[in-house]
Amino acid sequence: MTSTPTTPAMPSKGTLYLVPAPLDFGCDTQSPLDQSLPTATLQVASQITHWICENAKSTRAYLKRIDALHPLKQPIQSQQIEELPREVHKKGDHGAEGHAVFDARSLLSPALAGHDMGLVSEAGMPAVADPGSSVVRAAHDCGLRVVPLVGPVSLLLALAASGLNGQGFAFTGYLPQDPAQRAARIRELENLALKQGQTQLFIETPYRNAALWQALVQTLQPNTRLALASGLTLPQARTASRLVRQWRQQPEVPDNRTPTVFAIGR
Amino acid sequence: MTSTPTTPAMPSKGTLYLVPAPLDFGCDTQSPLDQSLPTATLQVASQITHWICENAKSTRAYLKRIDALHPLKQPIQSQQIEELPREVHKKGDHGAEGHAVFDARSLLSPALAGHDMGLVSEAGMPAVADPGSSVVRAAHDCGLRVVPLVGPVSLLLALAASGLNGQGFAFTGYLPQDPAQRAARIRELENLALKQGQTQLFIETPYRNAALWQALVQTLQPNTRLALASGLTLPQARTASRLVRQWRQQPEVPDNRTPTVFAIGR
Repeated sequence: MTSTPTTPAMPSKGTLYLVPAPLDFGCDTQSPLDQSLPTATLQVASQITHWICENAKSTRAYLKRIDALHPLKQPIQSQQIEELPREVHKKGDHGAEGHAVFDARSLLSPALAGHDMGLVSEAGMPAVADPGSSVVRAAHDCGLRVVPLVGPVSLLLALAASGLNGQGFAFTGYLPQDPAQRAARIRELENLALKQGQTQLFIETPYRNAALWQALVQTLQPNTRLALASGLTLPQARTASRLVRQWRQQPEVPDNRTPTVFAIGR
Repeated sequence: MTSTPTTPAMPSKGTLYLVPAPLDFGCDTQSPLDQSLPTATLQVASQITHWICENAKSTRAYLKRIDALHPLKQPIQSQQIEELPREVHKKGDHGAEGHAVFDARSLLSPALAGHDMGLVSEAGMPAVADPGSSVVRAAHDCGLRVVPLVGPVSLLLALAASGLNGQGFAFTGYLPQDPAQRAARIRELENLALKQGQTQLFIETPYRNAALWQALVQTLQPNTRLALASGLTLPQARTASRLVRQWRQQPEVPDNRTPTVFAIGR
């Protein structure tokens, strides 16, 4: 009997893991990773050697923190770390016409060659209020398995802590910076919240927290509820939820350094 | 010198912790708690002795699982476990007119007397797609500190894994059961998703998963993207994201036992 010719084994495709990061990015203090990340998430992350990220420097810093708890499979300097293109950082992953801003499939070639990959942003869940969804979409299109790992998501922690309706809500990103446009947008969101009972969540660059708070307290109706959550998962974490008229009586302005999520509702 | 008269020490108020629960509630298999809960969450939960919950029986089962990893401060049978009133389970915590369905302050008396309390639902984050927000609101009104702990939130894991816009999204709960009303609602949500780029997330009781999938694939436009995530954090976890025309070519119906999150977008 002659041996049958063997075909070279096709490598099976890798998995794309969505790896959450702690929320202390850019903050003065850091909390231990086991404060906000399950052991399983850290263990999976420690075994990944190919990354797609928002920022390579902060990814390396995060890997260093993981390594201290769960030794990395490969040293940081030999890991492959690719940044998402600049254009998706602010403009998002999806073109106005529904077309992708860039073809993310090229970033996924290690996964197509059989390596597990990690998608990570600077804080929280990648692709949620952060870039990365074009990569996830491309992964599905390439037939890769996509596995989201559990970790902190400031939007949902803030929603739970708001006392506002969690059975219907929307996240709208950033409000306009122009004061008149911002006030108009605040009234529009308040209208959705009051008429439909849909809690409205939004965020601001920390150095504009105080200005946004001021605009909200001035613009919203007295009986609208305004909640905010700052520094979630950190020692200085603070959640508050009051009617606008109560905020006016007890003004407590959020600081301009700590990431804050705002929510309004009825 | 005479000693100054001492006033009896007022107990300082307790904290209300929002304690997430694993997503395997009602599933055939359970995954280890460290799969989806950070050590810090489990440690804090193990020290709580007063609970407000969706269901006392499942809370006790959860406490038993915690106890196996982080011994409870008090045995389960001596813990105080209060259920939320039946009326908020389905109807939500907020009356149509913006009034509370019930006065949740009475549930918080242990916290006012100085005990830390835990709010917990059967799966995922309390007060998010689940009852509990009236308790959170009452806690803020009573001046209690409210601390959300990190854990799994199926909605946000599903959103991250959808490849859809995560910079603007809405959660709308359950769709109507009547086929004509459901189709109309699906078209309404699709319109929001396509026009505004706002990803629309919704859920269904597991035994209606297949019927909802069928209705979505029949009703949505061919180029709308439909994503779903089933059994998140479990071994049988599955995420998929395809254009409706691709789903029509490759029908893969979700099973009728596993909790599933649906998302549509462009």
